[in-house]
Amino acid sequence: MPDEPRTEKDLLSLEEISGEEVLELLDRAARLREGDHGRPLEGRSAALVFLNPSLRTRTSFELAVEKLGGHAVVLSPGTDAWKLEARDGTVMDGDAAEHVREAAGVLGALCDVIGVRAFPKLVSWEEDRKETVLRAFARHAPVPVVNMESALSHPLQALADLLTLRDALGDLAGRRLLLTFAYHPRPLPVAVPRSVLLAACRMGMRVTLARPEGFDLPEETMDRARSFAARAGGGLEVVADPDAGYPGAEAVYAKSWASPAFYGRFDMERPRREAVRDWIVTGERMARTAGNAPFLHCLPVRRNVVVADEVLDGPRSAVIPQAANRLWTTMAVLDRIF
Amino acid sequence: MPDEPRTEKDLLSLEEISGEEVLELLDRAARLREGDHGRPLEGRSAALVFLNPSLRTRTSFELAVEKLGGHAVVLSPGTDAWKLEARDGTVMDGDAAEHVREAAGVLGALCDVIGVRAFPKLVSWEEDRKETVLRAFARHAPVPVVNMESALSHPLQALADLLTLRDALGDLAGRRLLLTFAYHPRPLPVAVPRSVLLAACRMGMRVTLARPEGFDLPEETMDRARSFAARAGGGLEVVADPDAGYPGAEAVYAKSWASPAFYGRFDMERPRREAVRDWIVTGERMARTAGNAPFLHCLPVRRNVVVADEVLDGPRSAVIPQAANRLWTTMAVLDRIF
Amino acid sequence: MPDEPRTEKDLLSLEEISGEEVLELLDRAARLREGDHGRPLEGRSAALVFLNPSLRTRTSFELAVEKLGGHAVVLSPGTDAWKLEARDGTVMDGDAAEHVREAAGVLGALCDVIGVRAFPKLVSWEEDRKETVLRAFARHAPVPVVNMESALSHPLQALADLLTLRDALGDLAGRRLLLTFAYHPRPLPVAVPRSVLLAACRMGMRVTLARPEGFDLPEETMDRARSFAARAGGGLEVVADPDAGYPGAEAVYAKSWASPAFYGRFDMERPRREAVRDWIVTGERMARTAGNAPFLHCLPVRRNVVVADEVLDGPRSAVIPQAANRLWTTMAVLDRIF
Repeated sequence: MPDEPRTEKDLLSLEEISGEEVLELLDRAARLREGDHGRPLEGRSAALVFLNPSLRTRTSFELAVEKLGGHAVVLSPGTDAWKLEARDGTVMDGDAAEHVREAAGVLGALCDVIGVRAFPKLVSWEEDRKETVLRAFARHAPVPVVNMESALSHPLQALADLLTLRDALGDLAGRRLLLTFAYHPRPLPVAVPRSVLLAACRMGMRVTLARPEGFDLPEETMDRARSFAARAGGGLEVVADPDAGYPGAEAVYAKSWASPAFYGRFDMERPRREAVRDWIVTGERMARTAGNAPFLHCLPVRRNVVVADEVLDGPRSAVIPQAANRLWTTMAVLDRIF
Repeated sequence: MPDEPRTEKDLLSLEEISGEEVLELLDRAARLREGDHGRPLEGRSAALVFLNPSLRTRTSFELAVEKLGGHAVVLSPGTDAWKLEARDGTVMDGDAAEHVREAAGVLGALCDVIGVRAFPKLVSWEEDRKETVLRAFARHAPVPVVNMESALSHPLQALADLLTLRDALGDLAGRRLLLTFAYHPRPLPVAVPRSVLLAACRMGMRVTLARPEGFDLPEETMDRARSFAARAGGGLEVVADPDAGYPGAEAVYAKSWASPAFYGRFDMERPRREAVRDWIVTGERMARTAGNAPFLHCLPVRRNVVVADEVLDGPRSAVIPQAANRLWTTMAVLDRIF
Repeated sequence: MPDEPRTEKDLLSLEEISGEEVLELLDRAARLREGDHGRPLEGRSAALVFLNPSLRTRTSFELAVEKLGGHAVVLSPGTDAWKLEARDGTVMDGDAAEHVREAAGVLGALCDVIGVRAFPKLVSWEEDRKETVLRAFARHAPVPVVNMESALSHPLQALADLLTLRDALGDLAGRRLLLTFAYHPRPLPVAVPRSVLLAACRMGMRVTLARPEGFDLPEETMDRARSFAARAGGGLEVVADPDAGYPGAEAVYAKSWASPAFYGRFDMERPRREAVRDWIVTGERMARTAGNAPFLHCLPVRRNVVVADEVLDGPRSAVIPQAANRLWTTMAVLDRIF
């Protein structure tokens, strides 16, 4: 267990650590990728708590722990473990058999770090933005807590995104990123687009955010992104045309998300959503970008809905190395803790 | 594989091993907690068969195996593995695709120890008390079988309970334990209260069992507990008042359980159950105990139903160290086998 | 990652590797069983993708990886990971959130070998025989793919079957195997009977295939089996009587399967299926075989439906050592890759 105060070791969002620390994590990840690592987790263990499905996060986190010499216990509360309650002061006479206070306390007594994946419920933005489950784990665990994707943030993904962008572009300051909304049959959380937007702005990239009218990211996110961009000497421009962002873009990041304007009332959102089916990344659109702009997506991705086969299977797709970078950035996060 | 006869290495209940062995396991667990262990499971493996959810047992057993140098394979028959039949002689033309005979034989051929969690069905006490699944594994596995909670017993929990009580009270002989029923919206198995009652009586504790009329523990359990208490020079008193047991108690253990009188007819039990909502451990009640009596519970626990927040979050709650002791006692059980 | 071309390292079916390689794998497995192995998977990992339940394959593969020094990540898409699409060119606006192309690419970037279990859907033989999921993984993974049971093949099982037959009979050429259909309440895939039939014919065994009229194995399978038998100097005879195959058999392998004639129309198959309940392996039938003919089955097996208790619990049952051989043959497959 760490001897420094616990909260300094938590990673709940990239915004809660300094920009220098983000850069340090990226450098550390690049070194780890070169094979430069010991076994700082020898005799240590991680509890990975998944309240939602996972392929990349699960595999990369479990392997990161193993490669650093530790052991990962993977739990799925509600399936193989007890359903969790996260609200304080509640009378637990409903479905949940266990409170996060006990789960966090016990897992923190048995393990040396806890990873938590808790997607938003997509009913109330006011509720979701509290990140009740993640924050309860962080508050009650005696060991560092790492966010494996919450309502607002996916810091392990954002780190891999930045590393992938650096692999393609070198120093990111002043480089042009198109972050584009894409159609998807269902409303999705904003954690990934929010995290990559904030991370890119913080690095001083010149970001174009393209989304249909009505599909803005939350105001808090935009305000913070603009402030990051101003401080880092980058920029943030918003466009409402699916084509407008491509010319000049040096990298394209696509993602779908729910319209905050209709949060929890997705039946009312549906007509608007169905009207934006042309927000798809095609080879024709990619051809308008600057030079060999790579295509990024966090995955999983719906083929020929979010992005056309020709892009994903073409030479500019960076989605596989981007996912592979999840291993090294997660190892960097763990290596920083121990 | 052990060269001693298999059955001597099984741990199906604490009652099936000698009192000296229980004490030896507690001493061994305390030594392991001090960091004193080798890797007796190097090159060995455990199959952990969970027919029911688990957080503490899963995490502590998996880590116990790893810390001792082995590898644990976690299986959930009915979910990720085949649904199991346990009765002998049956014509298997129903849901179950595999018999415990084969599962036990195969897992015992591939692994060196098998853990089994098989909760009671809570339909027929006569059926449940046979512990058909657990006993079938023990009968047919060529390697030691460890009970990870059955209808009657939870020996790994009872060992951690005893270790936690010893941590607080030292030698347990003559010390006063209140084991109190608590309200819970659903009927629960008796394995934990039965196991802790028998274990405490065996250690010579003076136990007060508090439960509402109609919520007695099974007669067999009470007879055996009295006999253990008599032999060990302790005592067992039963009270029917939720307040009566606290004064003088040096430790409080709360747990809910189903009324054996209404076993399998829980619709009929419901009015009685709903009438005992005041059986909750509160700060006020804890304040009437002797000195700093610790509060124990096996977890998961329903907050403000079984026990008030003020107790769980107060300085007398021992539930987290109690859960942490699960690791050391499970390591002791494995260390004894290999 | 291997420096040889990937496809040479895949194991999608035994028929896709040479007979010499099959024999080499059996010899290698026998040596591994003697304890002769290093840690060629040190620092390496396997992704085991289970789209269907598993006990033996899961346990033996996970342990094989661990014993050779590596780490296995076990994923269940649709449960703990994203539901997969396998068809090329599809517009993914349905249930599946991820395409096998990405899953294979990502797992292949993170891990060094991928195991895939994808049972047939049992709706259309023309669809099932394409083995869409398995073949998509093999096509898109940059690392070797091992079939953990597909619509057509179960090579890891067939290797263990051959090793078990060799353990009992020595050199298999010319030895007499009865492969008998057995009643089962549900239509089952043909992967196991097909794989063992082809493997036995290839080894030059003299095989009697016993099945009721209407329950032939697919024509492609029979043609290939006859061709293997002819080349290896063995033989293949088909009988339609549940008793006819036992006299003279030196080993008996029982398995149920769906009637290809009614594939996907199992309501129409039901009367025929229910009419063959006497296709069960009994002690009386086993007594008519030659000497101590062992009884084999891949497990899980329905007792007193497919085979009588007296056979499974008798001295001629080889099902447990047969399952135990799964460990050594899987280790041989991995040892061959790395």
